[in-house]
Amino acid sequence: MTTRADIADYIKDQAALIERELERSVPAEWNMPAALREAMQYSLMAGGKRLRPILVLAAAEALGGRPEDALPVALAVEMIHTYSLIHDDLPAMDNDDFRRGKPTNHKVFGEAMAILAGDALLTHAFYSVVQAARKSGVPGDTIADIVEELSRLSGAPGMVGGQAADMEGEQGVTRLEELEYIHLHKTSDLIVFSVKAGGRIAGASREQLAALERFGTCIGLAFQIQDDILDLVGDETKLGKPVQSDVKQQKVTYPYFIGIEASQAKVEELTREAREAITTAGFPSPERLLQLADYLMKRDH
Amino acid sequence: MTTRADIADYIKDQAALIERELERSVPAEWNMPAALREAMQYSLMAGGKRLRPILVLAAAEALGGRPEDALPVALAVEMIHTYSLIHDDLPAMDNDDFRRGKPTNHKVFGEAMAILAGDALLTHAFYSVVQAARKSGVPGDTIADIVEELSRLSGAPGMVGGQAADMEGEQGVTRLEELEYIHLHKTSDLIVFSVKAGGRIAGASREQLAALERFGTCIGLAFQIQDDILDLVGDETKLGKPVQSDVKQQKVTYPYFIGIEASQAKVEELTREAREAITTAGFPSPERLLQLADYLMKRDH
Repeated sequence: MTTRADIADYIKDQAALIERELERSVPAEWNMPAALREAMQYSLMAGGKRLRPILVLAAAEALGGRPEDALPVALAVEMIHTYSLIHDDLPAMDNDDFRRGKPTNHKVFGEAMAILAGDALLTHAFYSVVQAARKSGVPGDTIADIVEELSRLSGAPGMVGGQAADMEGEQGVTRLEELEYIHLHKTSDLIVFSVKAGGRIAGASREQLAALERFGTCIGLAFQIQDDILDLVGDETKLGKPVQSDVKQQKVTYPYFIGIEASQAKVEELTREAREAITTAGFPSPERLLQLADYLMKRDH
Repeated sequence: MTTRADIADYIKDQAALIERELERSVPAEWNMPAALREAMQYSLMAGGKRLRPILVLAAAEALGGRPEDALPVALAVEMIHTYSLIHDDLPAMDNDDFRRGKPTNHKVFGEAMAILAGDALLTHAFYSVVQAARKSGVPGDTIADIVEELSRLSGAPGMVGGQAADMEGEQGVTRLEELEYIHLHKTSDLIVFSVKAGGRIAGASREQLAALERFGTCIGLAFQIQDDILDLVGDETKLGKPVQSDVKQQKVTYPYFIGIEASQAKVEELTREAREAITTAGFPSPERLLQLADYLMKRDH
């Protein structure tokens, strides 16, 4: 974990570790309908950057904790992210047939099973959080704090609220503040949770948690603005999806309000602010977190 | 809580207490889209027996605990039950337009918002569990145990699994064992959770938890068989819904396999077994739990 390997290699290795653990995250001995297990596993293993769980591990490492102690919480975040994609893709929501080049969950398993697979993954995330107590002896009080924060930041005042605002906003987001509300909740909240939870596992102080919160908010917003930029000017081959989909769907984005150049400057400013939050808080091993912030700013997919 | 009021009065009082608390269970200061809050609240406050949360409180009382310490967990169970009804009613699932005489969530708020309201309630249940630590000082380790059990019994190997099996079974449940699997997971699991969680809050021993598990499994199955019986021979006015809907939907039920009389005998046998589990375990104040078991057996709605 502490080699000086290039950040791209680090990300690849951590993603591989997370995928191995995700593969066996639903206990094999649990009795359940085969189709439900298959539908859960299909979306869990459908790829993706694994950015959020990697951030959980990197935050634990930044505090001098053992990343493996944070693994159950890292898996939990990816389960929450995965369920949100399954439900967002449903016909009643964004009605998407493909994600990352593969048919969406409801196209393969049907709508009813996709709804249930999402519900099951959401529910299983909380089971996974508790496994940090079972496997690494994380104290019950820390587990309670993490459960409370996960339900708040992924629930009605967090990610689900952001998604609801996004849906309502399709009738017309007219102010940058509304767009920022959606971005902050739909994307940043789960990233904030990720870095804070990794920090909590490693015993972060109140000040360190505040620094991680600022870091997460900034890179979360930067991540979403970068998404908007790449959708406008990115390379389809690298992105693995068609560009200009926001324009075609008449979706309001950050560049729509302030232009491409100001958007790019905003991404850089947010990244600087994120780095500063960490460097001024005196973390023992912040290198990977800082590298991840830079990597996200420069990404082309 | 310890008056000798008739069990029907006790149920009415406890249900009123639970509804008062449910009404303010989503913090008013949380910032979220108004429609999402409204959709969550609409189904939370749409009535119902409040059986599961009442069982949580009665189990805590049976162990000599203070029922109010178990209130946050009681609310959590009702949130899980409510989200499951919202999602079950969706067009892709049972496609129901009415529940308890009121339009279902998606008929009022649209499918997308109903999916999100369900997700938000499911997520909020775990927040509510943690409030037992914040409000009554329940230890973190107990919270972790309750979170783990809630996610298992309401998730893929529990309630969601039962619902998935029910959906698949619509193509033809041919054996009583398959029907029992559906009943046990779709209905009993959350009832088992309810009584065990109430017990955990009150510091139940391992043996007492095993007794509560047997009690919950038996009354859960009895409850579902009674539902099947009432659908066949019940009084529409008392039930508040049309009878013989299972027959019309060609749904296989307990009476279908073993007849009405044997089904009634089974309900009585299960109730006896439930009572016995409690009476032999030596609980200090088991009266309400025992009365609830009898009440459920004799109910006509």
